[in-house]
Amino acid sequence: MTSQRIAIPGHIVAIGGAEDKTSDLEILKQVFALAPRGSNDVAVIATASSIPDQILPDYKAVFTRLGAGHVHALDIQSRKQAADPDNVRLIEHSGVIFFTGGDQLRLTNLLGGSATLNAVRARLLAGAVVAGTSAGAAAMPGTMIYDGNATDALRKGAVNMTSGFGLVDGLVIDSHFLERGRFTRLMEVGASNPEHLGVGLGEDAAVIIHPSRILEAIGPGHVILIDSRELASSNISELSMGGTVAIEHMVIHALISGHGFDIEARRYLTPDKLKACLAETT
Amino acid sequence: MTSQRIAIPGHIVAIGGAEDKTSDLEILKQVFALAPRGSNDVAVIATASSIPDQILPDYKAVFTRLGAGHVHALDIQSRKQAADPDNVRLIEHSGVIFFTGGDQLRLTNLLGGSATLNAVRARLLAGAVVAGTSAGAAAMPGTMIYDGNATDALRKGAVNMTSGFGLVDGLVIDSHFLERGRFTRLMEVGASNPEHLGVGLGEDAAVIIHPSRILEAIGPGHVILIDSRELASSNISELSMGGTVAIEHMVIHALISGHGFDIEARRYLTPDKLKACLAETT
Repeated sequence: MTSQRIAIPGHIVAIGGAEDKTSDLEILKQVFALAPRGSNDVAVIATASSIPDQILPDYKAVFTRLGAGHVHALDIQSRKQAADPDNVRLIEHSGVIFFTGGDQLRLTNLLGGSATLNAVRARLLAGAVVAGTSAGAAAMPGTMIYDGNATDALRKGAVNMTSGFGLVDGLVIDSHFLERGRFTRLMEVGASNPEHLGVGLGEDAAVIIHPSRILEAIGPGHVILIDSRELASSNISELSMGGTVAIEHMVIHALISGHGFDIEARRYLTPDKLKACLAETT
Repeated sequence: MTSQRIAIPGHIVAIGGAEDKTSDLEILKQVFALAPRGSNDVAVIATASSIPDQILPDYKAVFTRLGAGHVHALDIQSRKQAADPDNVRLIEHSGVIFFTGGDQLRLTNLLGGSATLNAVRARLLAGAVVAGTSAGAAAMPGTMIYDGNATDALRKGAVNMTSGFGLVDGLVIDSHFLERGRFTRLMEVGASNPEHLGVGLGEDAAVIIHPSRILEAIGPGHVILIDSRELASSNISELSMGGTVAIEHMVIHALISGHGFDIEARRYLTPDKLKACLAETT
């Protein structure tokens, strides 16, 4: 896919859920800092959430505290609202677009193919930062996990996937990863197609996906990477649905804040290497 | 360690907990089948359990159904009982020695250095099968995990370990592995010493450790292996206690029944290769 090679001007930040919103704001501070110069409005899209009225004020407070111009609370709850030119306009005026947590299937179901989502894509291409937490993180790539109990995973078909927003290619993102023991989910996903890197975000942990396709881990939590590209063998295609999946050889990494990963080269970057890499490419 | 190279005549079977005791007995049937010819007494040691009266009859029924001569229910609940020559004698008469689940720290605390445990070792050297489920599996190797919440793991010191029975070297065994999402526990263990293979046993899954140090997965569940030997880097030794552990490069496999692993060569064995390997070495 050529899209994997082309540098997109904007940054993506995928957060594993439960990020700090009241104390040091370690992650959200960096999200806001990535906004392009002179574009400090923030659009918060709460479509995933079943309690938008409870979480929108929190994000409004955080981004205001961080120095945002306007914080636009976009409570899009229907496909009609997703097509609303007023919402499109607010996104067009924002340097940060933030997707809250909730249910990622609501996100794709309500926003897929909409004018709002097209506006988000255009903003990313123009250099804005697109961030999402939990459901908002899972929806970023071309393929999205939306359900599947981790204790059933590694049984063929236990992980439910569909198309995501396609804002970044070559990855599959899972959230609440360590807290809900979701390793098996990304292993099953990796066996089904070893091309895409599995990114397991812990709570209060995130990755910045730089335009050069370098991942940078931020926040106090862990980011687990499951790299299936050198998968040696798996029985998954021969099994009936529900059959137990065998896997020979995946590579796993645990990143902490300041460590990174080169998605294309499949190279782990210790802090020195990450700095050098980012200096080279920006 | 030379002990890693010497073939011990007996078999070890480590079970991840919750093995079928009423239906097909897929795992326990194989445990019993490994008993040396003419030695079909079974000793069940319930020391780990807080409810020995409830579980001993179940195992008695299972092994009787499988054709055991006598099933000796050894409810050893003190170091004094662990030194009792009567218990030693019952073990000496058994072709199968089975450790139930419960708390592995009770196992090592009550049996460590005892005449009973020495008798178990002697029986293994004489060709008997030593099997254990859950706590009984965790206690088999030289190093044993006895506590540590999986959601806290990958924070330095979160996993609590001590010496195990030392019946098998070069492994660390964790049980209920997929069901309790314990991947991070074996990753922290692997970072602390990459030499030992991490064996994560799912429920109703087990490994036979053959005398030739070939692992064979049995049962309907999964066996996850975490191989840290090619660990590229980790910050664990530089961290304060509680600090977040970074890990660059571990290898992970998911074995199902009929698949195997060569512990020394670190080689995954698909069913054909496993059969060839076992034919070669027995």
